[in-house]
Amino acid sequence: MAAPQTLDGWYVWHDFRTIRREAWKSIDVHSAAAVMRDFTAFVQGELDAQRSRLGSFGQFVLAGTKADLLFLYMRPTIGELNEAKARFEATRFADFTERAYSYVSVVELGGYLAKPGVDVEQDEVLQLRLKPPVPQMRYVCFYPMNKRRTHPDNWYMLDEAERRKHLMAHGQIGRQFAGKVKQIISGSVGLDDWEWGVTLYADDPIHFKKLIYEMRFDESSARFAEFGPFYVGEQVDVEGLTTWMMTLHG
Amino acid sequence: MAAPQTLDGWYVWHDFRTIRREAWKSIDVHSAAAVMRDFTAFVQGELDAQRSRLGSFGQFVLAGTKADLLFLYMRPTIGELNEAKARFEATRFADFTERAYSYVSVVELGGYLAKPGVDVEQDEVLQLRLKPPVPQMRYVCFYPMNKRRTHPDNWYMLDEAERRKHLMAHGQIGRQFAGKVKQIISGSVGLDDWEWGVTLYADDPIHFKKLIYEMRFDESSARFAEFGPFYVGEQVDVEGLTTWMMTLHG
Amino acid sequence: MAAPQTLDGWYVWHDFRTIRREAWKSIDVHSAAAVMRDFTAFVQGELDAQRSRLGSFGQFVLAGTKADLLFLYMRPTIGELNEAKARFEATRFADFTERAYSYVSVVELGGYLAKPGVDVEQDEVLQLRLKPPVPQMRYVCFYPMNKRRTHPDNWYMLDEAERRKHLMAHGQIGRQFAGKVKQIISGSVGLDDWEWGVTLYADDPIHFKKLIYEMRFDESSARFAEFGPFYVGEQVDVEGLTTWMMTLHG
Amino acid sequence: MAAPQTLDGWYVWHDFRTIRREAWKSIDVHSAAAVMRDFTAFVQGELDAQRSRLGSFGQFVLAGTKADLLFLYMRPTIGELNEAKARFEATRFADFTERAYSYVSVVELGGYLAKPGVDVEQDEVLQLRLKPPVPQMRYVCFYPMNKRRTHPDNWYMLDEAERRKHLMAHGQIGRQFAGKVKQIISGSVGLDDWEWGVTLYADDPIHFKKLIYEMRFDESSARFAEFGPFYVGEQVDVEGLTTWMMTLHG
Amino acid sequence: MAAPQTLDGWYVWHDFRTIRREAWKSIDVHSAAAVMRDFTAFVQGELDAQRSRLGSFGQFVLAGTKADLLFLYMRPTIGELNEAKARFEATRFADFTERAYSYVSVVELGGYLAKPGVDVEQDEVLQLRLKPPVPQMRYVCFYPMNKRRTHPDNWYMLDEAERRKHLMAHGQIGRQFAGKVKQIISGSVGLDDWEWGVTLYADDPIHFKKLIYEMRFDESSARFAEFGPFYVGEQVDVEGLTTWMMTLHG
Repeated sequence: MAAPQTLDGWYVWHDFRTIRREAWKSIDVHSAAAVMRDFTAFVQGELDAQRSRLGSFGQFVLAGTKADLLFLYMRPTIGELNEAKARFEATRFADFTERAYSYVSVVELGGYLAKPGVDVEQDEVLQLRLKPPVPQMRYVCFYPMNKRRTHPDNWYMLDEAERRKHLMAHGQIGRQFAGKVKQIISGSVGLDDWEWGVTLYADDPIHFKKLIYEMRFDESSARFAEFGPFYVGEQVDVEGLTTWMMTLHG
Repeated sequence: MAAPQTLDGWYVWHDFRTIRREAWKSIDVHSAAAVMRDFTAFVQGELDAQRSRLGSFGQFVLAGTKADLLFLYMRPTIGELNEAKARFEATRFADFTERAYSYVSVVELGGYLAKPGVDVEQDEVLQLRLKPPVPQMRYVCFYPMNKRRTHPDNWYMLDEAERRKHLMAHGQIGRQFAGKVKQIISGSVGLDDWEWGVTLYADDPIHFKKLIYEMRFDESSARFAEFGPFYVGEQVDVEGLTTWMMTLHG
Repeated sequence: MAAPQTLDGWYVWHDFRTIRREAWKSIDVHSAAAVMRDFTAFVQGELDAQRSRLGSFGQFVLAGTKADLLFLYMRPTIGELNEAKARFEATRFADFTERAYSYVSVVELGGYLAKPGVDVEQDEVLQLRLKPPVPQMRYVCFYPMNKRRTHPDNWYMLDEAERRKHLMAHGQIGRQFAGKVKQIISGSVGLDDWEWGVTLYADDPIHFKKLIYEMRFDESSARFAEFGPFYVGEQVDVEGLTTWMMTLHG
Repeated sequence: MAAPQTLDGWYVWHDFRTIRREAWKSIDVHSAAAVMRDFTAFVQGELDAQRSRLGSFGQFVLAGTKADLLFLYMRPTIGELNEAKARFEATRFADFTERAYSYVSVVELGGYLAKPGVDVEQDEVLQLRLKPPVPQMRYVCFYPMNKRRTHPDNWYMLDEAERRKHLMAHGQIGRQFAGKVKQIISGSVGLDDWEWGVTLYADDPIHFKKLIYEMRFDESSARFAEFGPFYVGEQVDVEGLTTWMMTLHG
Repeated sequence: MAAPQTLDGWYVWHDFRTIRREAWKSIDVHSAAAVMRDFTAFVQGELDAQRSRLGSFGQFVLAGTKADLLFLYMRPTIGELNEAKARFEATRFADFTERAYSYVSVVELGGYLAKPGVDVEQDEVLQLRLKPPVPQMRYVCFYPMNKRRTHPDNWYMLDEAERRKHLMAHGQIGRQFAGKVKQIISGSVGLDDWEWGVTLYADDPIHFKKLIYEMRFDESSARFAEFGPFYVGEQVDVEGLTTWMMTLHG
């Protein structure tokens, strides 16, 4: 039984951070503002890379205290993600953060999308899906997941037809949320602790709940999905991040 | 098989905190009293928001050492919860706390409550249940939970009639505690690590134990419920919190 | 199927602490002795409360490094336990401890002990069992536990007769250790992360091992019990605690 | 169904420590050497106790970074182990360590070894096995374990004949390694988080791997064993420990 | 049922480290450069050992924030690995790292490779596989794993023929990636918390994902494999490590 073919695009790094409140509040408001101004240069560089189609970047303020911020990077190689990590840590802003969680994966599409006779490398639609900019929607939801491998609900022991039937039913639910929720699947087998990372974007976060709850009653989730931690947050531009950071600074 | 419809109200943030004893005791008693006075302004702002029906707020001293305090916020949007987080962290009081646990969810009612012809947005009873003030009862109990998805006890593989039968039996137990225990269910599929958060309020905490123990023998809990950590505590107003903090200060 | 009735007595807080060795050894021996003398006042207060039947108190030096000390409190209300927490943290002694584990529960007896016509509140034997002083035996063993709820060994799906049969067999093992081991069961459904806390007392700790090992072969444990962490220690009075602390101080 | 009888000897404390590198390297080489000299007095005391048959003691440098050092103590009572803990923590050497893991148990032999008519207390062979000195072999391996209690592989639901059959097969594998691996089993039901601790000694650590791998194919391990963390290290005398510590000091 | 024979080579230590950003950035750029120069001596020593066939060494910058760096050591004995640990910790570079994860194992080959009449100790091909230098490929992937021992998918209860059939199918997948992925299996039964460590090397990390995903549909993984954490990174020489560290320094 062979694994389904996949198309693999840019490598993805979800970098979850917590604010070091004590350090942040210990500097005066002018210094804090300067830290944010300096960080703008870093962010602009990432956004420039996104505009130049060299990578992708997004930043988010997260709800709850599992983490405060999510920085999301995509690059053609793992080496470039490592370099982005070093550059982020080099900023003064980074000094006021702690690592809370992290996820490494690669944008993944079903191999069936590569129609016979199509050169994936030249197909603009596929290229945009494999190397996607961060959607300009207000809210984000991230979670990693596995397909279950325990008897009797072992996804990897199903025959191909059964798997395809499940995936089609699953996909139909997704399509009911077209326009409301944008989904980017990234594969992480061999790259991180779960098999996939799922990043959802929506202008109204209630759609995250409704979509995932709907899917949970679908057999492919009900019997076969195992979920890791869930994070939800709001996308912010430089001003939004600065406002939130300065509110926290007091 | 479709997911049951839900009505969704305000977003909820349970913020569990531990006191940084060493820092707190290192300031003198006058400074400690000043910190508590300043914090009163924050609390009053939250209580004003509750009175104006812009949100909800409650504060609790917790038993044991998993956490010392619970601050509970409700707001119409996740963005407003994030802003409340920044404002709390900006207080001097926050400097004497550490994050112990956190839960993000949204108040949830069964969709069957939206009777045909009723405009939920205009129904005062539903609106009060979807955007509830924190009940003025003395004790609180919080725990997150899942419905089990492992063979042969897979809630999401039951047919609708079976699920309804289970939920009705479950609800009847709840009704036996009417007047003794007030329950607010919030959904967290896609928002946090469990599927629901349950917040119970009672004037006598023994009812928490009796209610949950009774439910545990009900098939819907016995076969299908998975529970996260449990927290129990006592609701305090500004004076109560100050008294407890000053006792701890010594 | 209804839950078995329980009689519920005092609320219990097991407070496990680790010594902050570096801080403790950094003060000179006279200061260390003074810290212990001051702590004596706190302990005497708790012992006075026990003598006045307002609550219970015990202190224990634990084996291994999961924790160093156990302080055990019982009180009629959760609010009083919270107040004891604040008072303990206010002592100078507390500054040299860290929180290692904690358990909140309420002393629990089987409801069948309330014979028809008996007023539990007036029954001295029951009152002493519901509000027990800490037994004056040399060693303590604590562990939390659940009854399993996974197919096919789901305690909560057994019928009442079967549960009773199991509990009787279980109780007979306990009675074989009468005089050797004293057991106090406290319920924690809705109060903490497991369903019960078990606190055993014995003059010879080998009886803990023999009793629990014997029970493990009994069907009610073999099929239905899930155990949390185990702690074992030696009960100490003020002098014993001081001796141990001063030995550690060096 | 009754639990098998056991013979119980000395209480055992496995104390796993990590070096606080920053603190250790911050003192000068002369001070470091002095710390090690002073610690020699502690070690000599423990070795004297071992020679006088009042207890046992061993020290080991561990592989990997889960922990750096293992100190192993045996004593007739838990109180004496607690006192050893206080004395260790009182040394200057202890200031440069952190607690990494810990295990409390009691040396355990099968009750069948107590032949009728034999007074265990007077049987020198049994006494040496119940109160064993630490074997003078070069390498150590420690792991805690349980017998599984989940359907259908529930050790505690087997009848006695079946358990005996499994244990005999298991024992035969052990005997194949006679002379190569020395095994000390200690029971920890009621004392720590697993049911047994297993401490193996060998002059060549490949025998640990071969013995345990061989046993894994034996039904009593394959179906019924659950394993905790594994630690492997090299036994060191005072000079060996000092050499390793001074190498790390630089 | 006997365990399959294995050939065992050098002991392996995977040492995962995180950079202590605050400490690292607090020294000036000249000091930082000096730290890296000094560390070069350590690395050269390890590489010299590899050239002299006394051991192996590799260093890697990792993706994500579970860890930043992986140092991989192989040596004929555990004692030598312990000595390498002390020498690494003695470097100034080590002061800017924290331990993030660790794995101890021993290079393992199937015993069937020892053909009758062949002296393994004299067989150069086997010796090179048992004592392998770190492959000069650009990317690394590491994960520990177990064979499942829970009913009905219990690897250790299969008969030998069935296990062999599974392993052959598994091996064929590996061979499809010959030239693309180099795999070094090391056994860790009795040495660390999982049964094996798998270290993969490739010039393109997408092959890690494709290989492991392909294997997941093979029955030996689908039914019998349990996986620990996954780490992926890029191999760096002294210059590469210095460049990354200096980028992070800013």
